[in-house]
Amino acid sequence: MTDTWLPSLITQTPQEGYELAITLSRRGVKYTQPDMDTLKKLRPDYANSADGLTAASHVIAVNFQTVAAVNNYWRG
Amino acid sequence: MTDTWLPSLITQTPQEGYELAITLSRRGVKYTQPDMDTLKKLRPDYANSADGLTAASHVIAVNFQTVAAVNNYWRG
Amino acid sequence: MTDTWLPSLITQTPQEGYELAITLSRRGVKYTQPDMDTLKKLRPDYANSADGLTAASHVIAVNFQTVAAVNNYWRG
Amino acid sequence: MTDTWLPSLITQTPQEGYELAITLSRRGVKYTQPDMDTLKKLRPDYANSADGLTAASHVIAVNFQTVAAVNNYWRG
Amino acid sequence: MTDTWLPSLITQTPQEGYELAITLSRRGVKYTQPDMDTLKKLRPDYANSADGLTAASHVIAVNFQTVAAVNNYWRG
Amino acid sequence: MTDTWLPSLITQTPQEGYELAITLSRRGVKYTQPDMDTLKKLRPDYANSADGLTAASHVIAVNFQTVAAVNNYWRG
Repeated sequence: MTDTWLPSLITQTPQEGYELAITLSRRGVKYTQPDMDTLKKLRPDYANSADGLTAASHVIAVNFQTVAAVNNYWRG
Repeated sequence: MTDTWLPSLITQTPQEGYELAITLSRRGVKYTQPDMDTLKKLRPDYANSADGLTAASHVIAVNFQTVAAVNNYWRG
Repeated sequence: MTDTWLPSLITQTPQEGYELAITLSRRGVKYTQPDMDTLKKLRPDYANSADGLTAASHVIAVNFQTVAAVNNYWRG
Repeated sequence: MTDTWLPSLITQTPQEGYELAITLSRRGVKYTQPDMDTLKKLRPDYANSADGLTAASHVIAVNFQTVAAVNNYWRG
Repeated sequence: MTDTWLPSLITQTPQEGYELAITLSRRGVKYTQPDMDTLKKLRPDYANSADGLTAASHVIAVNFQTVAAVNNYWRG
Repeated sequence: MTDTWLPSLITQTPQEGYELAITLSRRGVKYTQPDMDTLKKLRPDYANSADGLTAASHVIAVNFQTVAAVNNYWRG
């Protein structure tokens, strides 16, 4: 991908950091499968699956660890 | 989402920290599937599944690592 | 839950720390499925499943990382 | 493998770091299955699978933790 | 369990540390399923399964992270 | 096992560190299933499986975190 989608990992608040972790998680999917039509077709497979949603939350949790560390845990 | 649900990662006790880790884990699911009716329908799929419950506890464990680090492990 | 089940993450020995990691892992399950009858019914599904037991040990391992860090690795 | 594919883990930006994490994740696959024809045949199995894409994003997330730490989180 | 099986996490060498990580991983299984006859019956389910063996190695890897940190990475 | 297969976790380069992470991941399998004939028979089960290859890369990623930390991220 040639666009700049991650200029910085710094966020103002933990919540923005969590939302950045979601972006990171989704980008991991998009890099692996860049075709948007395919991604749209697959969406119900995980968004309507308990296991798929838990797995998605797991990836977000791993990326949130990184974002939190980058931001020195928003300790001020 | 536009509401503020994560103003801070600081908690008074490890137990509150663990409960915040649960909140984080659930939010990862809700961001991925915002429709509450769908989420309610899916609940039995993991809440009545041994594998689903273990997977849920796994995500909580990852988020608890983050919350514990943020709180400097509640060392006082 | 309103009871206090996690007053502290400090333990005297690594083994007590490991056992606390087990407690944390089980609590993650109980918070997700608080009904004890359901949990009892599900027990054979993972306790008699090789995959289920490995998954349980995995969650314990993640929580043990946290407990070990909290206790500064019991270095003295 | 005898080629040099990982001369350094340092990157200029977080995004380059994320892309390096993708490279690391793919190399883990290639070391395990070096035959390119087999890899090509398997590609649809995960690139068209919601679970497979989430799992791929998970591995990237773990490697991104490493790359981010190496780069001292691009703190400047 | 009332026996002392983890008096210390300190090892002399990385290899001993890795073997301790295996012990930790197995104990996670035994605490969850203490019945030795059941465990013996389940052994072929993972020891003859590619997925089961990879999952076992994954748990060991997580515990090895902990043991390595405890030992300050055997840096001397 | 009585042979010495892990005398040190120090490597000269990140790539050697990644390859050591592969060794660690494979050893986790071998300790769990020491019989080489069984391991050979199982190889196609993961080496020809997209999920199996992703899972293998995941374990390598976890071990690479450890090796990278041991080597102080090859910062010089």
